[in-house]
Amino acid sequence: MTAPQASLLRLLRDGPRSRVELAADLGFSRPRLSVELDRLMGARLAEDAGPAASRGGRRSGRVRLARGLRFGGVDIGATSLDVAVTNGELEILGHLSEPCDVAAGPAHVLGRAVELFGKLGADRLHGVGIGVPGPVSFRDGTPVVPPIMPGWDRYPVREAVGQELRCPVVLDNDVNIMALGELHAGVAKRVGDFLLIKLGTGIGCGIVVDGRIYRGVSGSAGDIGHIQVEEQGPACACGNTGCLEASFGGAALARQARAIAAASPYLARKEGPLTAEDVADAAAQGDPEAARLVREGGRRVGQVLAGLVSFFDPGMVIVAGGVAGLGHVLLAEIRSTVYRRSLPLATGNLPIVLSELGGTAGVIGAARLITDHVWRAA
Amino acid sequence: MTAPQASLLRLLRDGPRSRVELAADLGFSRPRLSVELDRLMGARLAEDAGPAASRGGRRSGRVRLARGLRFGGVDIGATSLDVAVTNGELEILGHLSEPCDVAAGPAHVLGRAVELFGKLGADRLHGVGIGVPGPVSFRDGTPVVPPIMPGWDRYPVREAVGQELRCPVVLDNDVNIMALGELHAGVAKRVGDFLLIKLGTGIGCGIVVDGRIYRGVSGSAGDIGHIQVEEQGPACACGNTGCLEASFGGAALARQARAIAAASPYLARKEGPLTAEDVADAAAQGDPEAARLVREGGRRVGQVLAGLVSFFDPGMVIVAGGVAGLGHVLLAEIRSTVYRRSLPLATGNLPIVLSELGGTAGVIGAARLITDHVWRAA
Repeated sequence: MTAPQASLLRLLRDGPRSRVELAADLGFSRPRLSVELDRLMGARLAEDAGPAASRGGRRSGRVRLARGLRFGGVDIGATSLDVAVTNGELEILGHLSEPCDVAAGPAHVLGRAVELFGKLGADRLHGVGIGVPGPVSFRDGTPVVPPIMPGWDRYPVREAVGQELRCPVVLDNDVNIMALGELHAGVAKRVGDFLLIKLGTGIGCGIVVDGRIYRGVSGSAGDIGHIQVEEQGPACACGNTGCLEASFGGAALARQARAIAAASPYLARKEGPLTAEDVADAAAQGDPEAARLVREGGRRVGQVLAGLVSFFDPGMVIVAGGVAGLGHVLLAEIRSTVYRRSLPLATGNLPIVLSELGGTAGVIGAARLITDHVWRAA
Repeated sequence: MTAPQASLLRLLRDGPRSRVELAADLGFSRPRLSVELDRLMGARLAEDAGPAASRGGRRSGRVRLARGLRFGGVDIGATSLDVAVTNGELEILGHLSEPCDVAAGPAHVLGRAVELFGKLGADRLHGVGIGVPGPVSFRDGTPVVPPIMPGWDRYPVREAVGQELRCPVVLDNDVNIMALGELHAGVAKRVGDFLLIKLGTGIGCGIVVDGRIYRGVSGSAGDIGHIQVEEQGPACACGNTGCLEASFGGAALARQARAIAAASPYLARKEGPLTAEDVADAAAQGDPEAARLVREGGRRVGQVLAGLVSFFDPGMVIVAGGVAGLGHVLLAEIRSTVYRRSLPLATGNLPIVLSELGGTAGVIGAARLITDHVWRAA
């Protein structure tokens, strides 16, 4: 595919456009645009979409992505599996979500994902993007020493799923695909440079620069869960002490919730493992101990974010993930810490917001990632 | 200037190249390359440089930047002024350095810089890059509320110097131009993605992504001096407490050196303000208190860097600036903290090194910045 064709297809993901607009956006002459569009239409990637609204004079024809295009997005969580089919504009045409233990291993989880595509009636996909809850070698299409994914280390996810579904596949971590989802259809739609911080079982950060994921030199950029937030903090699974994740990851929060349960009428009534949701509910009902937990966690997250904002000067910060369900109490604490600790120049116009897409950010972002891949100059 | 012409000129900054190499690097046919080179030669920007070494068959002609090209680099420090003239390959043809108080104001300091260009015999410059020790609006070409530069806020540096020298001018902060200097001629010559941390009166970080300065959304990226390193740390001029700069900036170090002088035979003998150099000398002579100061500072810097390395996953970290004169004791402490606190994936191959260029990084980087500016597609 030529660079102009790839640019055209990526532009059309945002919906139908008139030929006049496309030529202007890409700096092409009308004849050159026609040549490129003819090729895309010949390859059944684009199609005519009727005349544009009249602006006086001859109407410009509109163009859209071929309606038959189908992409797949797979979002594998620690305990959940989401599979969606989208059109070329990355609108969700079908979405299935079910509990699934990532520790059951790649053969089981990926096999189940393929079955769900079958249930969704997707017999011919043009590409599939997959997100997993752990570090990934983007180049190789494999997980790399993922701490909560036993059996997945170096498993050839890209090749295995590609052979099964007979289409191109890309693999990335769950935080990066969530960031791409918010970029395509969420709160970051018109923001080219932003951070998405995911607070869940693990804590990670998606970095978007100029509309693309920044991965760093060895592919591990955004791995912020083990930044130190307390000099004498709790021990972390990574071997260090005082890591952000050890102080405010999902497991830490559950443990802290259990510890305060005796003093908290609301939490004391709950049986089984306590979750971020329980803490959020307790805080919402006025439980002072639960509210203190949330504020303390927000302060730790804000402390790390303040440093990253000073360093990186992003256009927006999105807070996402299960623990983000703690909601506006958490957000308020994060905001006040960041605004207090960062330089005014970097935070003057910096929105710090909750994710808008919630459960669909991952699958939309995964589909976006595969279109970035198949619609590139090559 | 067309994009291909700009690419050719930027490539030739690294020295003469054969036409065969240039065509291959840029993906041009030989006839197309000839057309572009003819235009550049007609504009006296490039010239023939004789035949390339024979590789059998017909020899390819070599091309170089016109030898008459002259660029200027100005590095304004808190208490120093460096002015250099380079050729198109950014080799220093003349360099003058003198004490100069930035607080004397822009008219005085910039006037003096123009005089030094006169002394260097540079009557016709093709462009000048300027670095200043404070935040800058790169777009406007002015300093923005620079804390140690009274009288410079919003001063139209770019316009003033441009009118005086009748050439294009760009303004940036001192850390960014040092990073570009190391990229062009120093330890980062073959590294596209790296961080340069400057430890001096202030503390800042230059961020290079894909061979270009990353500036962030409001232009303040890299402002790491006010990241918190101690919860109950010393008060900082910025109004917060525990900032990195308040704990290990030049002024903090001088104050700490004075405080330990009574217990340090070496420092007690020195009169007047104590500097980083004095502390380095004392530590080198085996003074345990001075060595402790350096190690503690290195640990604070390492703590911040560890977080940035986990987040950004750079290909190299360069330690530069006056306080970097503390040398290998400092470097060892920074390294051990970063390697201990960052994820193995990000630090597996991460070199943490001292600046190689020292006093010339700024002027070379300033000259590089103006060539990036004048040799761009427009």
